Amino acid sequence: MPSIAPPVDLIDLIATARVFVIPMVERFRGITVREGVLLSGPAGWAEFAPFRDYADAECVPWLQAAVETATTPWPRPVRGLIEVNTTIPVVEARRAAELVIAAGCRTAKVKVADPRVDLRADTERVTAIRRALGPAGRIRVDANAAWTVPQAVAAIEMLDEAAGGLEYVEQPCPSLSELAEVRSLVRPLIAADESIRRATDPAEVALVGAADIAVVKVAPLGGVRAALRIARAAGLPVVVSSAVDTSVGLAAGLALAAALPDLPFACGLGTASLLTADVTSDVLRPNAGYIQVPDRAPRPDRLAAVTADTATTRYWLDRLHRVAELLR
Amino acid sequence: MPSIAPPVDLIDLIATARVFVIPMVERFRGITVREGVLLSGPAGWAEFAPFRDYADAECVPWLQAAVETATTPWPRPVRGLIEVNTTIPVVEARRAAELVIAAGCRTAKVKVADPRVDLRADTERVTAIRRALGPAGRIRVDANAAWTVPQAVAAIEMLDEAAGGLEYVEQPCPSLSELAEVRSLVRPLIAADESIRRATDPAEVALVGAADIAVVKVAPLGGVRAALRIARAAGLPVVVSSAVDTSVGLAAGLALAAALPDLPFACGLGTASLLTADVTSDVLRPNAGYIQVPDRAPRPDRLAAVTADTATTRYWLDRLHRVAELLR
Repeated sequence: MPSIAPPVDLIDLIATARVFVIPMVERFRGITVREGVLLSGPAGWAEFAPFRDYADAECVPWLQAAVETATTPWPRPVRGLIEVNTTIPVVEARRAAELVIAAGCRTAKVKVADPRVDLRADTERVTAIRRALGPAGRIRVDANAAWTVPQAVAAIEMLDEAAGGLEYVEQPCPSLSELAEVRSLVRPLIAADESIRRATDPAEVALVGAADIAVVKVAPLGGVRAALRIARAAGLPVVVSSAVDTSVGLAAGLALAAALPDLPFACGLGTASLLTADVTSDVLRPNAGYIQVPDRAPRPDRLAAVTADTATTRYWLDRLHRVAELLR
Repeated sequence: MPSIAPPVDLIDLIATARVFVIPMVERFRGITVREGVLLSGPAGWAEFAPFRDYADAECVPWLQAAVETATTPWPRPVRGLIEVNTTIPVVEARRAAELVIAAGCRTAKVKVADPRVDLRADTERVTAIRRALGPAGRIRVDANAAWTVPQAVAAIEMLDEAAGGLEYVEQPCPSLSELAEVRSLVRPLIAADESIRRATDPAEVALVGAADIAVVKVAPLGGVRAALRIARAAGLPVVVSSAVDTSVGLAAGLALAAALPDLPFACGLGTASLLTADVTSDVLRPNAGYIQVPDRAPRPDRLAAVTADTATTRYWLDRLHRVAELLR
């Protein structure tokens, strides 16, 4: 039977590129604008937006991820709602509290260890966020590999106290051996992010002993399916995070979060609020801390509830084959 | 550059078939269950559900439409919200009023001329619906080609009076010449449905003079793009309707409604409420009379607002080509 849809060339996909630049609400990760490319393929729109400081070779998995999104349907989701944290940049304590209240999420991820501010400012920010979140909220901090081991131990102890208990600390130091050492010296859980996504082979990183949680991002890991494999290989609970994507990129993160067999922590996908604009009609912002997975596919339980009996199934499959013959 | 996504064979698409059977809330179009097949392709899920009384040859455009949906992205939308009517089956007047109130739509499409009831029951139903809708609501009736010309003229006069003014009458008689005659004898506008979708070549139907409005359905017309061509050829205002689809099929109708250059009337896509179950997470039911177009693509105005300047665009296109070379 002949092909009904033509193959897609990479060159055709690149020809659809639309370059975007979106100012950020607050300075974040050293940038004030988020920029990149949107590509449109048979399976929909995809985002290619590695940061400017990444060399070309490090951008290859980002393009692989975009190609997957543009050409392949998402894997089957096992959940329809994803709990997310709000992400709080390095801002003054009062502003941090305002952002937490505006977000309406139960969990806040707080950027710390920025070279422009000191530990006292980080501690004040975390204290203000605990006051804004209330005692039932969860606070995680992200140091983006900025600390040495002694710095990490001292900072984590202070921040853990200011938070009244941190949920976890993300990438306190650069290397896995440092993570393992910090992990043995502090109370909070340790999450690995850069250790995974900047590894030569993310599926081969020996995380056990060095981290309690694996932070997994679709674009730097080469796509939703690659990220699923890496999550399986990690052997740890997974937190799916964005790379401060538009809602086009966030949809891929949500597809990964929806497809993971287990998802015990809130994900870092509540980042649409960091951008001053977005590109889609439905911006993927959390509602009361949850984002609905954008998905037009049948829900397995709903499909199972309306599955036809054998005779009806036979009738339709026969009819389908007969009509397909007429279509040739 | 090599292909990055394989072509799709019809036989592969058919292999994904899932047969469904969904009981209807009320008997409708002579059926009490809606059944069909869902197919999954690279561009998403599609519905193939021609009614059982259709011969195989008449099902060919339905399969073409499903193939298009499963393999091709929707055309670019020009709007994000679609106003819809609620569809009222042949039920008692009191029940009709309940259904209208529950739906929350400003427009009701009322099935009339069913062989099981008489004109008096149709009139009572329309009277009850006007009371439920209030004076600002709109009432259209659908006779599904059941009347002769004299029957149509008599019935339309009575129903127009009961409605306090009908918005339009859909397919009062079978043939175009009958439609033209009825149109010259009654006050309300005339809409053509079966005259278009059951024609040998729907794009060639000479509607002008016979109808004021073209009712257009994706599946019987062979897909969203074919329906767009037929709408253009019709030279009349278009109302997009469903074939009582699940939310998988309704998404294709919404894609057509979203892509039409002009959409002056509410569409007949509020039919999810006729089914007792659905298959997707997000059921495409109207909210206050409107359905949001499910669309993850960038919105042209939002994309335009964040489009990069020439230098940034050049940077990203150069980077994209360099990384694509590394991907080969």
